[in-house]
Amino acid sequence: MRPATIARVGTTPELLTLEWADGTIAEFAAIWLRDNLPQDRDAYSGQRLKDVGDLPARPRIRSASSADGSLRVHFEGEPHAAVFDAGWLAMRSTDASERPEGVLRTWLDGWSFDARTDFAHAAFGDVLHDPDRRLGWLTGLLQSGIAFMSLVPATQEAILDAAGSIGRICATNYGPVFDVRAVPSPENLAYSDLGLGLHTDNPYREPVPGFQALQVLIASPDGGDSLFADGFALSEHLRAVDPQAFDILTRTPVPFLFRSPDAELYAERPLIQLDCRGAVAAVHYNSRSIAPLRPTGREVEIFYTAYRRLADLLRDPRHQVRVHLEAGDLVVFDNHRVLHGRTAYSSSRHARHLRGCYLTGDSVRSQAALLLRASMSRESS
Amino acid sequence: MRPATIARVGTTPELLTLEWADGTIAEFAAIWLRDNLPQDRDAYSGQRLKDVGDLPARPRIRSASSADGSLRVHFEGEPHAAVFDAGWLAMRSTDASERPEGVLRTWLDGWSFDARTDFAHAAFGDVLHDPDRRLGWLTGLLQSGIAFMSLVPATQEAILDAAGSIGRICATNYGPVFDVRAVPSPENLAYSDLGLGLHTDNPYREPVPGFQALQVLIASPDGGDSLFADGFALSEHLRAVDPQAFDILTRTPVPFLFRSPDAELYAERPLIQLDCRGAVAAVHYNSRSIAPLRPTGREVEIFYTAYRRLADLLRDPRHQVRVHLEAGDLVVFDNHRVLHGRTAYSSSRHARHLRGCYLTGDSVRSQAALLLRASMSRESS
Repeated sequence: MRPATIARVGTTPELLTLEWADGTIAEFAAIWLRDNLPQDRDAYSGQRLKDVGDLPARPRIRSASSADGSLRVHFEGEPHAAVFDAGWLAMRSTDASERPEGVLRTWLDGWSFDARTDFAHAAFGDVLHDPDRRLGWLTGLLQSGIAFMSLVPATQEAILDAAGSIGRICATNYGPVFDVRAVPSPENLAYSDLGLGLHTDNPYREPVPGFQALQVLIASPDGGDSLFADGFALSEHLRAVDPQAFDILTRTPVPFLFRSPDAELYAERPLIQLDCRGAVAAVHYNSRSIAPLRPTGREVEIFYTAYRRLADLLRDPRHQVRVHLEAGDLVVFDNHRVLHGRTAYSSSRHARHLRGCYLTGDSVRSQAALLLRASMSRESS
Repeated sequence: MRPATIARVGTTPELLTLEWADGTIAEFAAIWLRDNLPQDRDAYSGQRLKDVGDLPARPRIRSASSADGSLRVHFEGEPHAAVFDAGWLAMRSTDASERPEGVLRTWLDGWSFDARTDFAHAAFGDVLHDPDRRLGWLTGLLQSGIAFMSLVPATQEAILDAAGSIGRICATNYGPVFDVRAVPSPENLAYSDLGLGLHTDNPYREPVPGFQALQVLIASPDGGDSLFADGFALSEHLRAVDPQAFDILTRTPVPFLFRSPDAELYAERPLIQLDCRGAVAAVHYNSRSIAPLRPTGREVEIFYTAYRRLADLLRDPRHQVRVHLEAGDLVVFDNHRVLHGRTAYSSSRHARHLRGCYLTGDSVRSQAALLLRASMSRESS
């Protein structure tokens, strides 16, 4: 971390310039400083007490000086000085990601990855009882979008314990958990023995499930391999090799629909969803639940060409991690990023039974942040 | 609905053109038709059995003909004809929204609206027991983003019944329900007697809560009025009067943070979130939980100018619906669209107690769609 000793202070009415002891420079706009007065935050909750509309429209700095690790700023027309902690200012002016889980590890060439050694992998008991192991496992999950557990008991409730230890389970119309096994007349083709191409779950849902946990209760000895691909890596690859197709997939709303006797879920989303800066925020890909597109005329051809381009990338085995999960294995993945699928199996010859649930994204990230906070507090005490 | 009688069929290899009996024209690309073969959908679930990668790259129409409300299409190199229902094709080619709740009713001038008469309003018992009343109430909620109930019993569980009748409750780190009343050292300023400016809830959360229900258990006789504004209407107003500010607010990621002993929630979102077509998809506005912005230098000034512009619109009483809710009242609103706030009250003189919960967006929309399906089925039988 950058040393927080202030070597020099310079001001104009609109801008404060700090030179740190290591010679680096940080700039703070007057409006930014005025909006971040320590006394304008609630001491207990840390929440901001003032709205931007409460601030002077154009605050101007009259003077500023540093002493003893603090910076005092006088604003024009205001009687009291604002006092900022130099270390706090230093933290604000660095661009480095403060959290290890903020560093993405993408894996375009899935086939070169071994699910059991190249991703976070731990025994259920260790994740459950050892906070350091849980933090390491969660960090791996957040960086790579996928992580594995073994030795999860083959009980009805074990997935609630396993998933509950890393986040909050979010029930849907499928219930708090769902069983993935072949049934007659399935309302969802996942509940058949057909192979399933790589997909994300429930793009017709609002919100789209954040993380998915799948526990193997009964593995088929023949088929039913699990497939995974990194949607972020594939999207960035598409952006690099075919920017026009990438652009079309980010701008075309695709209708997704799920109908059953007790639910009717409909949402329009692009297959590749960008955030407000143009970074890939999510991939929504589920050919089973795409409803007929609009428009229906020739203008739709350009979308199909791009869509096929992405489908071809997904079908390429080089982009897929393939693993035969065994009973007691559990996989968790970011359903906004990682696509999953399976090879076909024969339900008439062998049973196969997975149990799954969804976790909210914030609860998983909060769990990791809390463990990191506790770990840093132990280190510093 | 458009009559589904086909008057004339024309084809090129890439495009099918239908003239309906009323003289209107509909066009269907060969790739679109080939992707929507009825036999490529599972008969029971309606899910698509084929992926786009399973289709011929450039399907070409050899011939097409209509008879008895059906359209037969022969594709080059394929032995069997595809048969489409003319009525189904007619539905696909119309741009009209098929669902009444898809029609937005915006309300920029909130002060001219009376909460008790200008929005959906019904007694709890009617919503609970009368499907037609529930459908009407839900349609109003989805069109205007807000709706009111009265005569909700002042019991601990009533909100679960009321909210559960219109959607699925989504628990957070606050629990399945939360109590909004003044407590000492609140971890959230909502749990104080301070006035709260208009805001949306939990922009630091992923997912951001969809709908919020708030039940009044104890109303303060003095202060504590409820305020609401239509974020979609305000955003479109801003787009019209200050397109540059609108643009900046849609492109600047704002960090939102909530920290407590048992949670650490962080997300970056623009204050105005657009969908992939540029329409306003959500408003995220909560000055209490905005963390310090990056960058810190003068380049942040342009954001502050736009932010203040939006804040000024929100503070303008003309944009606010104001209502003093009484015990037994319940309000539900779309937390991605409608901002809410309250005037201050004195907790030392009068108690005030609201109980709230969040509902997933899809469950509310699904409930409305199922009621509409049942209503149409009753009408046609």
